[in-house]
This record gives sequence, structure tokens and C-alpha cells, in this order.
Amino acid sequence: MIKSPLLFSIVFLFIAFAAAAENTEQWGIFELALKGPTAGDPFTDVHLSARFTNGAHTHTVDGFYDGGGIYRIRFMPEAAGSWRYTTSSNVPSLSGSAGTFTVVPPSFPNDHGPVHVSNTYHFAYADGTPYREIGTTSYSWCHQADALEQQTLQTLAASPFNKIRMCVLPQNEPESRPVLFPFAGSPPTQWDFARFNPAFFQHMENRIGQLRDMGIEADLILFHPYGHQWRFDSMDAAAQDRYLRYVVARFGAYRNVWWSMANEYDLLHNRTEADWDRCFQVVQQSDPYSHLRSIHNGQQIYNNAQPWVTHASIQNGSAVEDPARAELYRDVWRKPVVYDEVQYEGNLPQRWGRLSGQELVHRFWAGTVAGAYVGHGEAITSPDGGIWIGQGGVLRGESPPRLAFLRKILDTSPPGGIDPIDKWQDSDMGGQPGTYYLLYFGHASPSSWTFQLPKSGLADGMRFKVDIIDTWAMTITPVEGEFVTKKKDNYYFADASNRSISLPSKPFLALRIRAQAE
Amino acid sequence: MIKSPLLFSIVFLFIAFAAAAENTEQWGIFELALKGPTAGDPFTDVHLSARFTNGAHTHTVDGFYDGGGIYRIRFMPEAAGSWRYTTSSNVPSLSGSAGTFTVVPPSFPNDHGPVHVSNTYHFAYADGTPYREIGTTSYSWCHQADALEQQTLQTLAASPFNKIRMCVLPQNEPESRPVLFPFAGSPPTQWDFARFNPAFFQHMENRIGQLRDMGIEADLILFHPYGHQWRFDSMDAAAQDRYLRYVVARFGAYRNVWWSMANEYDLLHNRTEADWDRCFQVVQQSDPYSHLRSIHNGQQIYNNAQPWVTHASIQNGSAVEDPARAELYRDVWRKPVVYDEVQYEGNLPQRWGRLSGQELVHRFWAGTVAGAYVGHGEAITSPDGGIWIGQGGVLRGESPPRLAFLRKILDTSPPGGIDPIDKWQDSDMGGQPGTYYLLYFGHASPSSWTFQLPKSGLADGMRFKVDIIDTWAMTITPVEGEFVTKKKDNYYFADASNRSISLPSKPFLALRIRAQAE
Repeated sequence: MIKSPLLFSIVFLFIAFAAAAENTEQWGIFELALKGPTAGDPFTDVHLSARFTNGAHTHTVDGFYDGGGIYRIRFMPEAAGSWRYTTSSNVPSLSGSAGTFTVVPPSFPNDHGPVHVSNTYHFAYADGTPYREIGTTSYSWCHQADALEQQTLQTLAASPFNKIRMCVLPQNEPESRPVLFPFAGSPPTQWDFARFNPAFFQHMENRIGQLRDMGIEADLILFHPYGHQWRFDSMDAAAQDRYLRYVVARFGAYRNVWWSMANEYDLLHNRTEADWDRCFQVVQQSDPYSHLRSIHNGQQIYNNAQPWVTHASIQNGSAVEDPARAELYRDVWRKPVVYDEVQYEGNLPQRWGRLSGQELVHRFWAGTVAGAYVGHGEAITSPDGGIWIGQGGVLRGESPPRLAFLRKILDTSPPGGIDPIDKWQDSDMGGQPGTYYLLYFGHASPSSWTFQLPKSGLADGMRFKVDIIDTWAMTITPVEGEFVTKKKDNYYFADASNRSISLPSKPFLALRIRAQAE
Repeated sequence: MIKSPLLFSIVFLFIAFAAAAENTEQWGIFELALKGPTAGDPFTDVHLSARFTNGAHTHTVDGFYDGGGIYRIRFMPEAAGSWRYTTSSNVPSLSGSAGTFTVVPPSFPNDHGPVHVSNTYHFAYADGTPYREIGTTSYSWCHQADALEQQTLQTLAASPFNKIRMCVLPQNEPESRPVLFPFAGSPPTQWDFARFNPAFFQHMENRIGQLRDMGIEADLILFHPYGHQWRFDSMDAAAQDRYLRYVVARFGAYRNVWWSMANEYDLLHNRTEADWDRCFQVVQQSDPYSHLRSIHNGQQIYNNAQPWVTHASIQNGSAVEDPARAELYRDVWRKPVVYDEVQYEGNLPQRWGRLSGQELVHRFWAGTVAGAYVGHGEAITSPDGGIWIGQGGVLRGESPPRLAFLRKILDTSPPGGIDPIDKWQDSDMGGQPGTYYLLYFGHASPSSWTFQLPKSGLADGMRFKVDIIDTWAMTITPVEGEFVTKKKDNYYFADASNRSISLPSKPFLALRIRAQAE
């Protein structure tokens, strides 16, 4: 059933050498391909790594067997300049290869690097550019026929989404009928978990690279409970660890990779929390780039205080109905909180798949002003039965244009991120004290608002401009004139002449309040 | 300035011996008093402990110096029967004392033992009796003149409260002018942190014993940021640890003691989180009874996932405005969540001290149906300027009778505790699936309710009775007849004849829905 990966490998080999010769970009991929043994099980018998250094930084990077006698080592350099490498292996012919290569500064759009946590609750690219996440989910888009995958890529290119959550391992049919399988063996259940199928991974890394080139982060879901038909949930601890190391060795050099240890991890009933701790540590130790690491809950939330968790990846739709709920998890973990799953815009009978577009957009805004991030998903059935969160394809919902509108607003929000201004008090307001405020009215339909801001960062005589935002109609209406702060009481500043603003008595309104330059 | 504790000690010595001779009760206190050296600093020079065993259980318990040449060891036996002890000390005359004593079964009201965590999110006494917490706070009630303290005890005796949060160390004046100080030295700031003032601790343990005899748990706040006038916040790590060990040795045998590591711990700016980890571990290692341990936040929440934290002790008024907020912390720590501070019923200008009685009672109900616990506090000024949360005295608010009403309802609630029935969905409802439900309408003013319950624990044909509860008027009105379940859809059961209930269109209503015996 598994096609020979030989042809692919040879093609890739030449590409790889060419790329290396052409000067690798900072945060690009330097790839080394070496000929090695094909006897035995090259996936487990051969250990290969390389030490990369530019003098200031040194990394040891694991290689991997790519089939057809080809072994590869991929490296993402974090700095321009001259690098050198030396390989090590238990196979003498693979050991002691050495060389140097030049890394050139990045070129657009490869100019920001990987995303990391910034300012405790937020994200930024390696070059410091803020990364304001507007993610979506399509679990199995990468296990489809080529035409559908191409369509998904086109949809993504026209969408507001800068992250996609996607499974590495195939799901059950009929939700997703995989074209390729990750292991050697025979479907549905006869797998050799010690032998990988290079073609499967070559396909996926090609897609990851395409996402990267569109500026989309790939939040790779490493395990999930939906593959029982294929028995991928039956991997023992050794197989899990081997799989994780292989995935990290192959995909880790892609700068847009995030590691999501699992979707609904607690539904994988044959694993303990200690197993997940171990899986996290395997990834943490294998990944020289410290890509973002999270784990997504079903009913039970993992202890995101663990040091190997970089941010919380939460399923909880209720928590983003109200900013006062959405902000509570921030304090608990002091890490970014991403509500990756808040139920989906859709027309399914199940309650997780029947949100209106308005309600999903509301949840984005509620999460945003709470200083958190929210994820999109769509479960609107298509003529062929597929849905976006399953197979990808096209988006049919009303929320994506409104999320594009939100993204544009966030593009000009403070680089430090949006935080609660006065947490546990004025939870409908986020921003940065003294400079920038987003006040979100949610389901309320206010007809007016009297200028008032919590005191943090304020003094008398500061000047502000206000915009009325209709988050659903996608309009921004500047309010004429300025507002000038004057201390009102021990908690608030009002406008010096107590100005009010008329509002259109509709739900889903917001205000943007920005300090004017002195 | 510090009075001699000698007279007190001699009196206590005879009481102690008498108590031991009279047969100690299970969960009572066996106390051993030994004559020892008075030279040097007996608090630090002398190490004394005793090993207690009944064959099945063995504990090593630290002793303490009580002044006047008297050293004491207190022990709370967890089982009736014959126990023996042997002392160890670096002072030969204190070492090797041995004896046996008989522990008799407990007598009312000493019949339940200390409170521990039960059923993950709840509490129970050692004998399994559920403990449904309705706590209050009076930080400095135990640092007042005798008449005021007696008044506080009388108030507590007539109140619904079964726990009180109270500081061990005095606060600043004028909020609280302590009668006694915990350390040898001279107020306001000249203290010898290596020498304790036994009279201070004798006084406090007398009060703890009085609380115990009224069935009130003493949640002892070990550190707080409000004592800067006395420089108690200047203890170094060694002084902190010595103080903690002394407190545990003295108070640990009182079965109603809980350890609250600090109030608003994050406002003690000279300590790191690692310092708090260490303090927790000192208490954990010193306390043979594993009394409940928590730490109370200001703006920053401690990592309550740490193994030495038994339950979360939260300050956050916003979180209990809405059950959907209040339940979020439960999943994070999988421990009981006690909202010990949710702002106070009061008439202060500060927003933490100006809740209406209705709003405080609302927060109790919101927290209760979310499967959490809520704490009372009152900040209503008295003619002499004191307030309940500061100095104690009398209660003036409207909430206590309503909390007594709530407590009576909880007295007949399921022993396993109230948990969310369908978390993240129907968050206004708590109870136990299939048997008992509390549905709380909060600020809404419903005129009717159609019988409907989430499916968990239900089957067709189960019979329920419904009571309408007015949480403010303190009335319970049974609804005539029964309701019989019939599956409605994939998520709910309704009444077989789709019965509705008329409601009085007022806020703060609740329904109690109980299964009828087959």
C-alpha cells in the first residue's frame, strides 16, 4: 500500500544541496542530506545528529531517515553570518561530516522568525514584531486529496487567519480518509510504529512550508483521540517518543511550527497525565528552537503551570461569552491564554457545531478585550458532506470577514498587547493604561456612553480620541472632537466637561479610545 | 513591656496534666509538660519532640518552650485506644520521658475531627461528615481587649459561620492596637524574632479552643502585609521558619486549625514565590496532622497546583458575580475553591468595602451552584470606628441571616457536595446528577420556568419535587405535585407533560429540585 519514497527523496536531495549552496536565510532551513545504510531498520538503528555553531550560538540537531538510503539534518539558523557543522552518528560513514555555510539576512516575507511568548500574555516573532493571533482549525485538511488541499490553501490565503490547528496523525473515516499513512504497514490497523513512511511526512512538510510562505503558523496536533480506527492511539510509550522525535527532527526547522501535544488529550484514556508530562519533555529536549508548546483539553484541563507549557490552549466556549470569565485563566498560569476552541460557527445538531456567526465573533471580541486569544472554527456542511474543521475546503460562514476586520484593528493596537486595564473590575475594557483602550459592550445595546477610564496611567489633562466600532457591520466611526481627562474619584477619570457619546443602541459595539500625542 | 508568662504557665501546667489524666478524647489534645532549662534562649537552644504511637499510627511531634522553664508537647490522636510516647531532646533531662495514655471516643460536639479535602472539590470532617463551609473574616479580632473579644465570640456563636479567617500576627494601628505581641522585645519595632512571647500564644490558643468548641474552624493567617508598623514583615527566612515551626508546634493539635500561609501574599514585596514555597514546606513537614493549607492572593494568584496547597483561597469578587466565572478555577487546580474574599458588605468609600447585603448573598449563591465556597466579610462602621473584618464585635449587615438560610439548605444537600451538572453549559445549576439540583437565577427576574434538566444521571420516568427558594426573603415554597422526566433531545430531559412553574418575577430566586424515592 505504501508507495516507494525513493523518487521523492532523490528530488529533495538535489533541492536540499542547492538550497544550501544558495545561502540559507536567517530563520530559513539549511538542510544536509547524507547517503547511509538501508539495511535493518534505519529509523531506529541509526542515530545521527549534527552540531551547528556560529561561535555565539551552538545547537545539536537530530537528523532523520528519509527513505531510500537518504539521511537528512535540518537546521533553522537564528542569526545571519557564518555557521559550521559537524555530524555525529553510530554509523561511521555518517559521522564526522563537516562544513560551513553562510546565512544571509531574511527577506520578505521571511523577515520575522518564529513566534514566541512575549510580555507574559502575548506573542511576538523573533525579531520583536507583535504576533496577534487569529487562528482557525482544520484538523484533517492535510490528509485529503491534492485538489481539496489546494483549495484549502487558497481559502487560507484569502482569510484573516495567521494560525491553523491541524492534526499530524489521520483521523477516523469517514471524517477523513487519508491519502497517505505515517507508518509502514497496512491499513487499517497493521502498523510498524518503528518504521515511518517518509512520503507521508514529505507531503506534510511541504504543506507546512506553504503555510509558512503565507505567514500562517502551523499548530501541529501531535496526538488526538480520533484515530482509533487506525489504532494510532495504541502506540506505547516508546513508540510515542520515537514518533515525537521523528516529527521534531523533520518539522522543527520550519519556523512556523507550534507543538500542540494533543487535542482533547483527556479523551485518550489509555494515557496518564504523567505520560503527557513525558511527551512534553521529549519534545522540549528534542527541539533546539523551543517552538511554542501547548496541550488542548476536553473536559479536563492539563496543569498548564508546568514549565514545559508555553501557553494555554483551551477548549471552553462558555469562558469567552464574557470578558470577565475569559481573563480568569490568565492569572492562574501567567502565560498567554488561547481559547483555541470555543465551539464552531455551524449548522450541526451538536451544540459544539451550531454557533451563529455573530456569537463566534462576539466570543473573539470578548476574549480579545480580556487579553486572551480566540480560535475560529466552522462546521457548516458542504454539498459533499465535508466541513471546514474536518477536511478544509472553502469557508461558508459569516464570521471570517468580521475576524479580518478585528485583525485590522489589532494590527494598530499596542505592540505590548491588550491587557485588562482594571482586572476583576472593568472587565469589558482591555488595552494599555494611558494610551489605548478597547471597550466592548457585547450583547448590550447602549444608546450612550459617558467618557470614563480607570485611573491607571492617567493624569488630568490628557487628550483622547474615540472611535465607535460596529464589530458586526465592520464600521469605524470617529467621534468628533477630543476628550480631556479629569480625575473623577479614587478609581476613575472622566472628561473635563463630562462629555457623553451617542451610540446606536445595537449589540456588538465597541469603542476604541486612543491618547493623542502631546 | 512584656508581662511575665510564668503565672499563666503554671496554671496551664496543672490543667494539662489533669487533662492527660482524665483520658484524652479522639481528636482532642493530649499535652505533656516538662520542666527544662531556662538559661540561654530556650526557644532556639532546646530541641524537643516526642514520638507517639498506637501501633497502627506513629507521629513525631515537635514540642515548644512555653516560658518559665516549661516545655510542652501537644498531640491530637486520630484514634481511640492506647497510645504511648517517648520524648527526644538535645537536653538530657527532657529526653527519654515515656508513658502511655488512653484515648476515648469523641463526645459531642467533638465528634467529627479535623476537616480535610473530600471528593476533590469539597471538604469533610475526619469521620466523613460533610463540612459545608460558610466562612467569615475578622483579621484582628484576637488582638483586642478582652471585652471586645468576648463580644466577638458571642456574635460568632449566634452566626451561621463555621470558619473564621484571622491573623496570627498583629496588624498596624489604628486598625488594630494589639494587647499582646508575639515576640520578646519592645514595640513598635524592637523585636527579638528568636524569642517568642508565650503569653501572646497562650491567649490565641485559648481563643482557638473556644472557636473549636463552637464548631468554628480557625483559618490562621500566618503572614500578612499589614504589619509594617511593627516590622513583622522584616523577618528573614530563618525567622519565618522558626516562627512557623513554633506556631505549628503550639496550635497544630487543635483540630479546627487551618493554615493560611498569608493574606494578599503578593503584597509582601520582599518575598519571592520560592520563599512561599519554602514556607509551605516548613508547615507541611512540621504538621503531623496535615491540616488544610492555602495562600490568599492580592493581585497575583499563587500556583495552587503545588502539591502542598490543599485548596485555593481566592480573593476575587468579580469571579463570583456569575457561576460560569466561579467554576473556572475548579478545573484548573482540581481542588476545592474557596472565594474567601469577594469584597465586603459595607459602607466604606473603597469599592472593596461597599457591597450591598443583596450582592454579597448573591455572590454566595453564585459560588455555591458553581461548586465553590464563598466567604463573608463586613465593613460597616460602628460608633467606635471598628469594623467586623478588622476588630470583630457585632455584625450589622443584612447578609448573615441569609447566609444562615443558605447554610440550612446546604445542611440537607448531597454529602458528596454540589458540583456543576453540565459545566461550561448550564452553569447556573449545581448539584448531583439524577438526585439533587440547585438552579439559581441571580439578578434575573423570571416569571416562569419550564422543567428541564441536563441528561446526566437521568432516565425516563424519574420523579422530582421542586421548591422555589427566595434567597433574600428566606422562603422555601414547595411546588405542588411531581415532575416526571422524559428525554427531550440529546442534551436534556423535560417533564413528560411539559410542566412549567410560575415564578414571582423577582431577583435572587433559586429552585431546589430533588428526586423522589422510587
